[in-house]
Amino acid sequence: MLKRTVFFISDGTGITAGALGKLLEHFPGTNFTQVRLPFSDTLDKIKQAQEDILNAAEEDGGRPVVIMSLGNIELRNTLKQSNAYFIDLFNTFIDPLGLELDQQPLTGAGIAHSVMGTKYNDRMEAVNFTLNHDDGMTNSGLEEAQVILIGVSRCGKTPTSVYLAMQFGIKAANYPLIPEDFERGSLPAVLHKHLDKIFGLTIKPERLHAVRNERRSGSFYASLDNCRKEIATAEDLMRSAGITWADSTSRSVEELSAIIMEKTRKHV
Amino acid sequence: MLKRTVFFISDGTGITAGALGKLLEHFPGTNFTQVRLPFSDTLDKIKQAQEDILNAAEEDGGRPVVIMSLGNIELRNTLKQSNAYFIDLFNTFIDPLGLELDQQPLTGAGIAHSVMGTKYNDRMEAVNFTLNHDDGMTNSGLEEAQVILIGVSRCGKTPTSVYLAMQFGIKAANYPLIPEDFERGSLPAVLHKHLDKIFGLTIKPERLHAVRNERRSGSFYASLDNCRKEIATAEDLMRSAGITWADSTSRSVEELSAIIMEKTRKHV
Repeated sequence: MLKRTVFFISDGTGITAGALGKLLEHFPGTNFTQVRLPFSDTLDKIKQAQEDILNAAEEDGGRPVVIMSLGNIELRNTLKQSNAYFIDLFNTFIDPLGLELDQQPLTGAGIAHSVMGTKYNDRMEAVNFTLNHDDGMTNSGLEEAQVILIGVSRCGKTPTSVYLAMQFGIKAANYPLIPEDFERGSLPAVLHKHLDKIFGLTIKPERLHAVRNERRSGSFYASLDNCRKEIATAEDLMRSAGITWADSTSRSVEELSAIIMEKTRKHV
Repeated sequence: MLKRTVFFISDGTGITAGALGKLLEHFPGTNFTQVRLPFSDTLDKIKQAQEDILNAAEEDGGRPVVIMSLGNIELRNTLKQSNAYFIDLFNTFIDPLGLELDQQPLTGAGIAHSVMGTKYNDRMEAVNFTLNHDDGMTNSGLEEAQVILIGVSRCGKTPTSVYLAMQFGIKAANYPLIPEDFERGSLPAVLHKHLDKIFGLTIKPERLHAVRNERRSGSFYASLDNCRKEIATAEDLMRSAGITWADSTSRSVEELSAIIMEKTRKHV
């Protein structure tokens, strides 16, 4: 498989450049090694980066990809003397967008501080809310939730909730469906008044069996037979309550979150 | 303040396009409204998007910014007939990068599945580890941690740990410094053998006072005087143990994470 090293070189935290790393997922046929060089704001650091680029090229047998975000033009031009494939965020995106908006872009450390506004506080508040409302920990404050994820134990509710909160500032509670609910044959009573913001997760029995076995190998809880029954009953409960659900078996938290935001759009 | 609507239009989850939203942070002088239109994979949906673009332009008094990731060329060309400022990830990035790598890019739903590899599992395992090792919840398994964040209560340890885990797959435990530690004048005994992976967080007393007051207004715990004393003592403890720390007062979790990864680079 083709090997390439990808450098993220920034004069700030490298968050913007790092976000572009998502683009690499379009090329699963290449084995990428990712190297982050944040706070590269002096000529010495850029020269060190150039050496690293040279070494990586030799090791990989192919020139590195450099995703760069450097506000200083001298540093930018120096770095570009390396033999690499450059994605220059300033040339490609930030400067042209600045022309469109008729506004000088902030650079480097200036940005990090500018993001600490209301939206940032909302995200952090959502993370706190989500951690305090993980796994049905408490019923108090559920009316504040924007989304309530439900599903059998270990179907992916927690990481999906955390992603929704951290990435989008959505207060996402999650609530497990447990044997008591299956015996009673209805959703937990506390959820009845929140049906409009509930979203279900389900999972394939074989996958749930594998996941549960990692923690409690050989238990009844983890047995394939029990997983099958729990999932079938949970899906019956959700169906009869009219709840939309998605299968987490082969979906990332990113993909599940996109689906949840799409389906519950009116609430978030 | 200038108003602009930014549309993220994708035939998949919109994760790649959404990541580009970070670029907007370079322009704090513009008030951006962000609209996500994932799964836009039919002509009908693209036509609806064009109407939304038109309406947003009228409302804002300026043409929208459209960050688009559409694999299908017909949909792409149709969308581009709108009056907007386009950032086309395929034209700008993905196709040129494909030429460099001599590889056809995956598009749409194909990508989401391709990201579910080892790295994804590592990230999810890190999230579980971090949630199970939040706030000194347990000492068991600390040897598995790649980073242990310490600091006074409510200085930002939890959201930073969660971000490190979710974004970078780093198993980040966190451990509070509490009055008992201050009285004893040394770090908790359990941390002594992990000094090489401990990173400290500190915060300005005024900010800590405000944060604690939100939860426990008027308490001794939240008083400015107690916050000052706790922070001074915590910094003394960290200094004498040779622990590097960063001030979280005006730094986002993204920025703190970049600093922590930089400083503890040998471990992550």
